[in-house]
Amino acid sequence: MIMDRQLGELALGDGFEGYYILKAAQQKTSVSGKPFLNATLSDASGAMDAKVWDYPGPIGAQDAGKVVRVRGTVGEYRGALQLTLDRIRLTDARDNYNPAALVPVAPIDPDTAMEELATLLASIEDADYRAVAQAQLEKHGEALRRIPAAKSVHHGFLGGLLMHTLNMLRLADFVSRLYAPAMDRSLLLAGTFLHDLGKTREFDFSELGLVTEYSTEGQLLGHLVLGAREAAETADALGVPAEKSMLLQHLILSHHGDPEFGAAVLPQCVEGELLSLIDRMDSRAEIYREALDELQPGEFSPRIYALEKRVYKHE
Amino acid sequence: MIMDRQLGELALGDGFEGYYILKAAQQKTSVSGKPFLNATLSDASGAMDAKVWDYPGPIGAQDAGKVVRVRGTVGEYRGALQLTLDRIRLTDARDNYNPAALVPVAPIDPDTAMEELATLLASIEDADYRAVAQAQLEKHGEALRRIPAAKSVHHGFLGGLLMHTLNMLRLADFVSRLYAPAMDRSLLLAGTFLHDLGKTREFDFSELGLVTEYSTEGQLLGHLVLGAREAAETADALGVPAEKSMLLQHLILSHHGDPEFGAAVLPQCVEGELLSLIDRMDSRAEIYREALDELQPGEFSPRIYALEKRVYKHE
Amino acid sequence: MIMDRQLGELALGDGFEGYYILKAAQQKTSVSGKPFLNATLSDASGAMDAKVWDYPGPIGAQDAGKVVRVRGTVGEYRGALQLTLDRIRLTDARDNYNPAALVPVAPIDPDTAMEELATLLASIEDADYRAVAQAQLEKHGEALRRIPAAKSVHHGFLGGLLMHTLNMLRLADFVSRLYAPAMDRSLLLAGTFLHDLGKTREFDFSELGLVTEYSTEGQLLGHLVLGAREAAETADALGVPAEKSMLLQHLILSHHGDPEFGAAVLPQCVEGELLSLIDRMDSRAEIYREALDELQPGEFSPRIYALEKRVYKHE
Amino acid sequence: MIMDRQLGELALGDGFEGYYILKAAQQKTSVSGKPFLNATLSDASGAMDAKVWDYPGPIGAQDAGKVVRVRGTVGEYRGALQLTLDRIRLTDARDNYNPAALVPVAPIDPDTAMEELATLLASIEDADYRAVAQAQLEKHGEALRRIPAAKSVHHGFLGGLLMHTLNMLRLADFVSRLYAPAMDRSLLLAGTFLHDLGKTREFDFSELGLVTEYSTEGQLLGHLVLGAREAAETADALGVPAEKSMLLQHLILSHHGDPEFGAAVLPQCVEGELLSLIDRMDSRAEIYREALDELQPGEFSPRIYALEKRVYKHE
Amino acid sequence: MIMDRQLGELALGDGFEGYYILKAAQQKTSVSGKPFLNATLSDASGAMDAKVWDYPGPIGAQDAGKVVRVRGTVGEYRGALQLTLDRIRLTDARDNYNPAALVPVAPIDPDTAMEELATLLASIEDADYRAVAQAQLEKHGEALRRIPAAKSVHHGFLGGLLMHTLNMLRLADFVSRLYAPAMDRSLLLAGTFLHDLGKTREFDFSELGLVTEYSTEGQLLGHLVLGAREAAETADALGVPAEKSMLLQHLILSHHGDPEFGAAVLPQCVEGELLSLIDRMDSRAEIYREALDELQPGEFSPRIYALEKRVYKHE
Amino acid sequence: MIMDRQLGELALGDGFEGYYILKAAQQKTSVSGKPFLNATLSDASGAMDAKVWDYPGPIGAQDAGKVVRVRGTVGEYRGALQLTLDRIRLTDARDNYNPAALVPVAPIDPDTAMEELATLLASIEDADYRAVAQAQLEKHGEALRRIPAAKSVHHGFLGGLLMHTLNMLRLADFVSRLYAPAMDRSLLLAGTFLHDLGKTREFDFSELGLVTEYSTEGQLLGHLVLGAREAAETADALGVPAEKSMLLQHLILSHHGDPEFGAAVLPQCVEGELLSLIDRMDSRAEIYREALDELQPGEFSPRIYALEKRVYKHE
Repeated sequence: MIMDRQLGELALGDGFEGYYILKAAQQKTSVSGKPFLNATLSDASGAMDAKVWDYPGPIGAQDAGKVVRVRGTVGEYRGALQLTLDRIRLTDARDNYNPAALVPVAPIDPDTAMEELATLLASIEDADYRAVAQAQLEKHGEALRRIPAAKSVHHGFLGGLLMHTLNMLRLADFVSRLYAPAMDRSLLLAGTFLHDLGKTREFDFSELGLVTEYSTEGQLLGHLVLGAREAAETADALGVPAEKSMLLQHLILSHHGDPEFGAAVLPQCVEGELLSLIDRMDSRAEIYREALDELQPGEFSPRIYALEKRVYKHE
Repeated sequence: MIMDRQLGELALGDGFEGYYILKAAQQKTSVSGKPFLNATLSDASGAMDAKVWDYPGPIGAQDAGKVVRVRGTVGEYRGALQLTLDRIRLTDARDNYNPAALVPVAPIDPDTAMEELATLLASIEDADYRAVAQAQLEKHGEALRRIPAAKSVHHGFLGGLLMHTLNMLRLADFVSRLYAPAMDRSLLLAGTFLHDLGKTREFDFSELGLVTEYSTEGQLLGHLVLGAREAAETADALGVPAEKSMLLQHLILSHHGDPEFGAAVLPQCVEGELLSLIDRMDSRAEIYREALDELQPGEFSPRIYALEKRVYKHE
Repeated sequence: MIMDRQLGELALGDGFEGYYILKAAQQKTSVSGKPFLNATLSDASGAMDAKVWDYPGPIGAQDAGKVVRVRGTVGEYRGALQLTLDRIRLTDARDNYNPAALVPVAPIDPDTAMEELATLLASIEDADYRAVAQAQLEKHGEALRRIPAAKSVHHGFLGGLLMHTLNMLRLADFVSRLYAPAMDRSLLLAGTFLHDLGKTREFDFSELGLVTEYSTEGQLLGHLVLGAREAAETADALGVPAEKSMLLQHLILSHHGDPEFGAAVLPQCVEGELLSLIDRMDSRAEIYREALDELQPGEFSPRIYALEKRVYKHE
Repeated sequence: MIMDRQLGELALGDGFEGYYILKAAQQKTSVSGKPFLNATLSDASGAMDAKVWDYPGPIGAQDAGKVVRVRGTVGEYRGALQLTLDRIRLTDARDNYNPAALVPVAPIDPDTAMEELATLLASIEDADYRAVAQAQLEKHGEALRRIPAAKSVHHGFLGGLLMHTLNMLRLADFVSRLYAPAMDRSLLLAGTFLHDLGKTREFDFSELGLVTEYSTEGQLLGHLVLGAREAAETADALGVPAEKSMLLQHLILSHHGDPEFGAAVLPQCVEGELLSLIDRMDSRAEIYREALDELQPGEFSPRIYALEKRVYKHE
Repeated sequence: MIMDRQLGELALGDGFEGYYILKAAQQKTSVSGKPFLNATLSDASGAMDAKVWDYPGPIGAQDAGKVVRVRGTVGEYRGALQLTLDRIRLTDARDNYNPAALVPVAPIDPDTAMEELATLLASIEDADYRAVAQAQLEKHGEALRRIPAAKSVHHGFLGGLLMHTLNMLRLADFVSRLYAPAMDRSLLLAGTFLHDLGKTREFDFSELGLVTEYSTEGQLLGHLVLGAREAAETADALGVPAEKSMLLQHLILSHHGDPEFGAAVLPQCVEGELLSLIDRMDSRAEIYREALDELQPGEFSPRIYALEKRVYKHE
Repeated sequence: MIMDRQLGELALGDGFEGYYILKAAQQKTSVSGKPFLNATLSDASGAMDAKVWDYPGPIGAQDAGKVVRVRGTVGEYRGALQLTLDRIRLTDARDNYNPAALVPVAPIDPDTAMEELATLLASIEDADYRAVAQAQLEKHGEALRRIPAAKSVHHGFLGGLLMHTLNMLRLADFVSRLYAPAMDRSLLLAGTFLHDLGKTREFDFSELGLVTEYSTEGQLLGHLVLGAREAAETADALGVPAEKSMLLQHLILSHHGDPEFGAAVLPQCVEGELLSLIDRMDSRAEIYREALDELQPGEFSPRIYALEKRVYKHE
């Protein structure tokens, strides 16, 4: 019996036991009238179909997304591996498993990333902008380190928001030096750091930390307005001059670049314009990275919803 | 010498003296090399061209929008009346004129209107929504009574915001009864009252109260975000439940209906949807009213910028 | 044996007999090679799945939408009630059932509604507009009382056109008083009444009165052009002045507001502008009403096709 | 004294007298305080600036578009010919001039064109479609022969509608043979002939036959709806089957191809689709012809409003 | 045993043997655990479902698009004919079948069409344009005669590109005479002939000549750029003046009319404008022809993707 | 007499002589009937109005853009300096002036910039991409060093294309390291270098090197297609593999990102996607830099055509 191995490492004929996410489940009845469960299990290494024969419940579609403890063997169906389970149960507080093994995580080291991010914020020359950024880091650091940046479009994994924010800060740092002195580096870096912090309130998260849905205030107010308001409150509390608070809010409210893409206002200062392009650049680079990962050289992807086109992986 | 008469009532040959707005001015030099001033004077009754011959200054283009004291006679040029001024000076604090005679005002009685508005707010059934609305009325009542609703598109006169808000409240009241019980009258009325209060900060005003330009925060943040934030702060201060505060903010943020027209988020509850349509209805009705006022029956207007079309005045 | 009861009131174990609509049917073959019928029955209270075992026909997919007489018992399948029928036959002229029990109807009393509508038309001050409206009421009153306003988007039930038209007339009446004297109440009310009468020719109807499909002229000419032409003919027959006939046609042709939404011309008089907004307001209010009906407080709907967004039902 | 010569043939120093259109006029005052008239005269050969010194009126801006009798001499100003007039008066019924010399006319022979058009209509195989077309030719032949097809975009000269209609009929004839038997030649030819006849009511015309403005019903109903209604009435009067009348109306209502370009409905039968493309092809060919006429080989035109681009005349 | 008959001519009960395309295939397992193959066979006459019972492979989904040799009998299932096969194998080089019987071909005679096309090219008056066209015909004649013009939208059958090109040349010939002398017939005909030759490199083709997919350079560069570059190289090789080469490239690059539809540049000379309209006309006519072929008079089609609407087949 | 001083350094009362650009000129007649010239002179420091009294020509509007030699004095008119010239003549080959003093130039040192650019190209790891880039640098280096990147939108000064290309290469270098290994640095750098080289053929240049107009092939083919073709020819000549040549062409053809902005194809590989964003980022940064240069802190610009909005210069 193989214990707690990643799905991607199981082989035909293996007996195994372990914790996995019940990604999907459907109760069915066989032609002979017997109930069985059609399920999909997943962990950070991928997903696999599973059958639980003669299974009357109670586990079913309503348990999708939960962690289960299962025991079974690895078979084959139409050329693909398929699991046959003889035991399945929901986990509870007494179960002791490693969530990081079950869900996808950003390909970065969170400690190093947080450290680099803190260093970049500490390098903000303007004391007001730096103070707002550091106060917000204090408040949201724990969430930032952990949550995804999206439900699915890009960076939809644990640590996604951190990876996205750090890459954008690196770009902002480079760009502000390239276009100095026509640009206020302090404003650009602070705005870049703050731009997506409203996402901590825009989503509902599963117990494992993935985004399951938009929250009600996420849908009715949006992470731009939520984030701008919080930045304003922090700036007020710190006694930051009104003009600077207004500029930070403007960067957050305009960072989607165009009302068509969700911006509450159009960017009208150069730092806001560049923030929206830096955001677009990092999002697009990541969408491509995730899409090209699934392709062989010389292949085109299927149509990618967020890009409204197919992409090509060259040799 | 006729004193302080409306421009629209002056007749050819009249000598006159009075206060008017210097709507526009241009320093010119005649072919004989003498300086003169080409000016346009205005008051609530309209505008008229004026000349100040042999006038070396100091009044000029930089004084447009200010109130002047002038003396002159009414002549004629190419079939239209034209003023020739022999005296012109800027006014200061010691001058005593009636602003209402100088700028256009809403065709309503502000006292009656404020009273009806207060009565409608008092009729809001839900104590939380009513409290927020009344607190904001307390705070902005004075400005609401006075300021225009726009720079020029519609309701661009003193009292314009009050006229617009009151008509919309009347519509909201009717609509909420028509579609009861599928609609929350309290939410719709409170949201309608609050929807444009951010305009008190969106504009810069001339000394006579007209809109001269968007303020900086009006351009960079917009009256939707400004208004929503203030509503949220008021709700917080009054201990209003978070869901209700969120719904009020949602109505304010979405009242332009579509991002294409400036909405920060799409309306997603029925009261927000209807608020955006009530706003559009009252705006359009007023644009037509102002345009038709200039036409004879059977005529088409020139192209109206805000409607992207010409309109027709039928018999 | 329970006779002629609404589906929504049947309980597990009941034997029953009655008339229902065969909403859908599919002939299938079981794994043992025997034919059976997968069917869905519906009435005004909703829909329910049904099986007819060992059934070789002749009833099948081609009979969808017809009324059937069935006998059976109420069982259960995967937690939901399911009917097992032992008899099923198509109805013919000799069957005597109540259509109102089988299809959804508007939540209004048609007699009262028709009366209020007639009163509103009688209140039209201008004799010409009133004459056209009343002549058209005479002609289409019977259909108006009965037909839906749409295939499915909104008001897609018996009496839907009446409910839609009456609510719009109430709005038009209020609005014309609110904006008097800048508006011709007679024109607005007459145009509002006429605006959708072309729908009597735009659709094909099932024997029970629901819209099954667009008619050929409904697709090739559209209800705007059909309605405008009929209004013009009625006006001609009544000797109404050409300008008034033209204005009525203009209101009908432009009531969708924008060519993008099907308007044949842009509204260019204030009554046409407001009619298009009143139409949009009543349509939207009803779409929300129907959508919110399916939701619990705090829930979002699935994406609604006609609105291109999800909607929220607040507490 | 040269009598009644085309402007394009006058030379420096000529004394002349004749009838011309007063294309534009502006009353001015010279620096010495004397009134003079700045005018532009035009005829079919083009336009030329003119001055009437010491002229107090009564002719002025309000007479633009009228025919005047003038006498003067040809001078020069900044390298261009300019007329100095010593006499100018408006014409009346007693004046006897040739309108064809004053306004641009289509480069076709109207008699030959009408004959070819009649022959094409006579070749329509289907008796119903042919009857409608011939009845409408009977009714509108005189106007068709004379009026422009537009105010200015293309074919904006006398005979323009005839030239446009005939070229489209030739195309329709060719296309219907090319795509036979997938196409009904009779429907396509009849629809092509009828498609723009509503323009006889869409415009107001100057006394010389040029389009001065859209008529009220032209703006409020549009030539598509006007034309379709008349076709329907003619078809009814002739007892043409309803399906055929509907198809003719459909072709007229949809001939702009897309609601964005003014179509009341989308073309949904192949003849309507092709009619809209034939219309676009002939319009575009004429816009190019008129634009290229003004250019030298190797030149680009200024931006052409109707095409939203510049065009190139190659060698 | 009936040999090599078209599917459309097989009748219930027939035993048959022949070559067909395996349009689709799916390996399945029956409830009794036995493997079988669900297949669809096709030839130029259409498609039919087939079953191969107790069939463990090796033929399966991966063989879709290949030609198979089968033997079986014609049965019936739910009112439609269905084939039961007892033998199925893939074909190889030794099999001798007629591809033209297996795939749809254009309803034209290719020899006659090629001859007419060559005659039209020979009639090009300008020696340079003629030389380029004839050189390209020399090079691509074989492919032109054979390949489809598209994957599926229109002309998606063998000989489709030839049929499309020839019809467009006929239109170009007519149009250039209709609008002479405002148009360069030589340029229009040469450009029309060349406009789609880049399609020879834009697609990948199945062994039977149908388009299976876009080629990599077809997707990354597009047939407009590919075709323009080849035309330029041919023109260079033949010593054609640069202006003429540029105009040919311009026609090819702009023939989709609008960037929204894939044009690399906007048409800016009259021949390019007309080429884009001729292309649209022939494409639309063919889309309708193919759609109407499937309909009965009085019917509407389902929504046609390329037209974004349904179409109507009149009586 | 001050010789050859920049306009920006002249003071009231100065007598001066020098070379300037005749930016605009208009022949006028004074009220006393004497001819004079209204002119605008410009050099790299700005522009100033000038009068040449009693000047009958020959210099006039037709000489705009040429270099003139003038002598005059500095006066004042309505508070601004104005030049009165007593001599003006066109220059010819014998005149010896410094063009760099007359036209605006990029704020970079061209030698240093060319060196850095060459170093970046030399750092391209892939020998094929490097060879194409270096061959094109060899060919176009001289023009690249000199020409503007646009007529007016941004970088419309001498050296503008070099400044734009170098900044983009710096960004491409940074971005390719940030997103390594998901990106081919060699392809991105080579494509970035090549992307605008077609501009050497897209424009016509004045004798001083500024863009006066689009060239004919610039308008009919565009710099994307021109550049892609040249890259392909260079790649062919160097024996670069077809896939690499295709990718370079794809980057050039797609670098405007969207057909709406002029892209001939959509970017479909990650390097093309990023190139289009890098181009947009550098263009926008420069548009802001040029606009903010004209503003005081706290001011908004007028509407900027290329951005379709106003921009704000913060403190």
